Amino acid sequence: MRSRIQALKDSFERTKIDGYLVTGETNIFYFTNAVGAARLLVPVEGENILYVRGVNYAAVKETARGCQVDLVKPGEDVDMKVAMLVKKLKLKSVGYDTLDASIYLKLKETLKETRLSAMNELVWELRRVKDETELGYIKKAANITSEGIKRAVEVIKPGIREYEVAAEIEYAMRKLGSQGVAFETIVASGPRSAFPHGGCTGKKIEKGELIVLDLGAKYENYRADITRTLFIGKPPEKQARIYETVQKAQQKAFESLGGGVKVKDADGIARRIIQAAGYGEYFVHRLGHGIGLDTHEPPTLGSEAEDVLKVGNVVTVEPGIYIEGFGGVRIEDTVRIRKDGAERLTSATYDWSV
Amino acid sequence: MRSRIQALKDSFERTKIDGYLVTGETNIFYFTNAVGAARLLVPVEGENILYVRGVNYAAVKETARGCQVDLVKPGEDVDMKVAMLVKKLKLKSVGYDTLDASIYLKLKETLKETRLSAMNELVWELRRVKDETELGYIKKAANITSEGIKRAVEVIKPGIREYEVAAEIEYAMRKLGSQGVAFETIVASGPRSAFPHGGCTGKKIEKGELIVLDLGAKYENYRADITRTLFIGKPPEKQARIYETVQKAQQKAFESLGGGVKVKDADGIARRIIQAAGYGEYFVHRLGHGIGLDTHEPPTLGSEAEDVLKVGNVVTVEPGIYIEGFGGVRIEDTVRIRKDGAERLTSATYDWSV
Repeated sequence: MRSRIQALKDSFERTKIDGYLVTGETNIFYFTNAVGAARLLVPVEGENILYVRGVNYAAVKETARGCQVDLVKPGEDVDMKVAMLVKKLKLKSVGYDTLDASIYLKLKETLKETRLSAMNELVWELRRVKDETELGYIKKAANITSEGIKRAVEVIKPGIREYEVAAEIEYAMRKLGSQGVAFETIVASGPRSAFPHGGCTGKKIEKGELIVLDLGAKYENYRADITRTLFIGKPPEKQARIYETVQKAQQKAFESLGGGVKVKDADGIARRIIQAAGYGEYFVHRLGHGIGLDTHEPPTLGSEAEDVLKVGNVVTVEPGIYIEGFGGVRIEDTVRIRKDGAERLTSATYDWSV
Repeated sequence: MRSRIQALKDSFERTKIDGYLVTGETNIFYFTNAVGAARLLVPVEGENILYVRGVNYAAVKETARGCQVDLVKPGEDVDMKVAMLVKKLKLKSVGYDTLDASIYLKLKETLKETRLSAMNELVWELRRVKDETELGYIKKAANITSEGIKRAVEVIKPGIREYEVAAEIEYAMRKLGSQGVAFETIVASGPRSAFPHGGCTGKKIEKGELIVLDLGAKYENYRADITRTLFIGKPPEKQARIYETVQKAQQKAFESLGGGVKVKDADGIARRIIQAAGYGEYFVHRLGHGIGLDTHEPPTLGSEAEDVLKVGNVVTVEPGIYIEGFGGVRIEDTVRIRKDGAERLTSATYDWSV
């Protein structure tokens, strides 16, 4: 099998570059299997060099693949080390994934004979299509994530605090082997459920409140993401209507997915269902996002994006309706794109009355 | 009391700028009390503008202080919105905290009449000196963090897996009100303890192994950080000698701290003790780092840094010795700098044999 670094190099001819500088943490991990390195330089010919500081040198040496590991000593400037090698190799045009402006300006000042170009998309072309190993890890993360919701359903009762629910969710996921959490767990109840990124507080959950739970496990550095909205007791008509609208939007958008589908079409399906129910202005975010080594990565499922889904993409489908002062409902699954459809990787009840 | 934004503005005359653009997430929180906004523009005169996308608009509107909240609609480019306002206000010289190179280049292209300058240090001059409210939150985070170690000491026994220990630590901290964790908990046992950032795995902890525990709670977005090294049973001579060396280095470095002390002197005290014991090459990182809204922030306590400690700084003191294939020892506390000394905010036993 072609290595990931080789796949990156295979794009050099088409993009007219003779080197690529990787600085993003998860990008470096994707190419080298190493956590905690500072930079990866991939020249068109010769050794790929992974730069790492002393604190992570031993761990990186043990795990890194397909590259030579170079120690950055105290007092050494890693960017100057990269620049010196670019000069020595006489690279004419180097792409990069992401750079802080001050590093960019320093490199540009030093490398007057080299063109530096932002080419993040070269990495994402590769990363957005998951291989079987990656899909296995995400599937495992998704299974653990689903158990997190199960635990929340067990423990939620009137009087429990939001952060106590988060404690139970995270504990259950950790005991199943989750590597911490993919992102800060959200347990947002009552009026707070109207904040899509509401975090969790010491607020007690009461009967008659909407409760949005948004959580994710991590396994072998890969992530999953799920949201369920619960209600203690029998939901009143307005809450029930909002919930049914969001659930229908999520289901119909999910059914629309598959290889070759435009992301904006999927977003449009969910958005039109919510608009038709009279809640269009309250769906204040996009339908979903890619997920893998990062919680939010390409492709974004939004109305202005031009992306087309490919087999092997893993994305979230998460419409929501948020009414200030009243509350919110969001339903989300992590799904894998297949040739003629999509497969939910997370699975938990949509029966929301607890 | 002078607001934090006003304190930033008060540096404009000295630094010859007439505006400042804040993009860092914790920097924006520091100035506005809002989580999830995209940009903050602080012009020398007139309203401070906080730009926020729809998904976080309701939450930001409710929490933001000292600025006008401007909604970034779907399809709008937040950087172009900022640029248009800079043009309208005819700002001649704008500082910024941190910018991705592509955003920098886009702004530079659009704002031909405006000088853009990296001025991260203006924010850090303020953030590195904590006020009483901040110190209160860090103290609370530190108390919860110390309880995490207590819980680990209770549960560690031969046969328990590293991630099971992490589960117990994190559960205990969450139940005490920790807002998730400040960083991924480290439970690194046996040869893995030689990796300073070892994370935690499914490995079972056995009798006779060094176990490095590095963990931190979060409270009101402020963080703490502690490390203890444990040993199941009676430590052999070599392990004991290493432990005593690290503990002495930590204690002596701690005693050296105070307002006006050079960070490189503090690092040197710990480093010389470790060198004198013959382990100099195995202390592969700096003595410590500032901590607050970020886990790692200025000032860094390192041998090449020129910083001088100030009353109100909060830093970690964490010497370590790491021997590949054998194991490692690190001892760390979060401490507050006072006029004539320092105060440990974290507190947990140094009695390491469990």
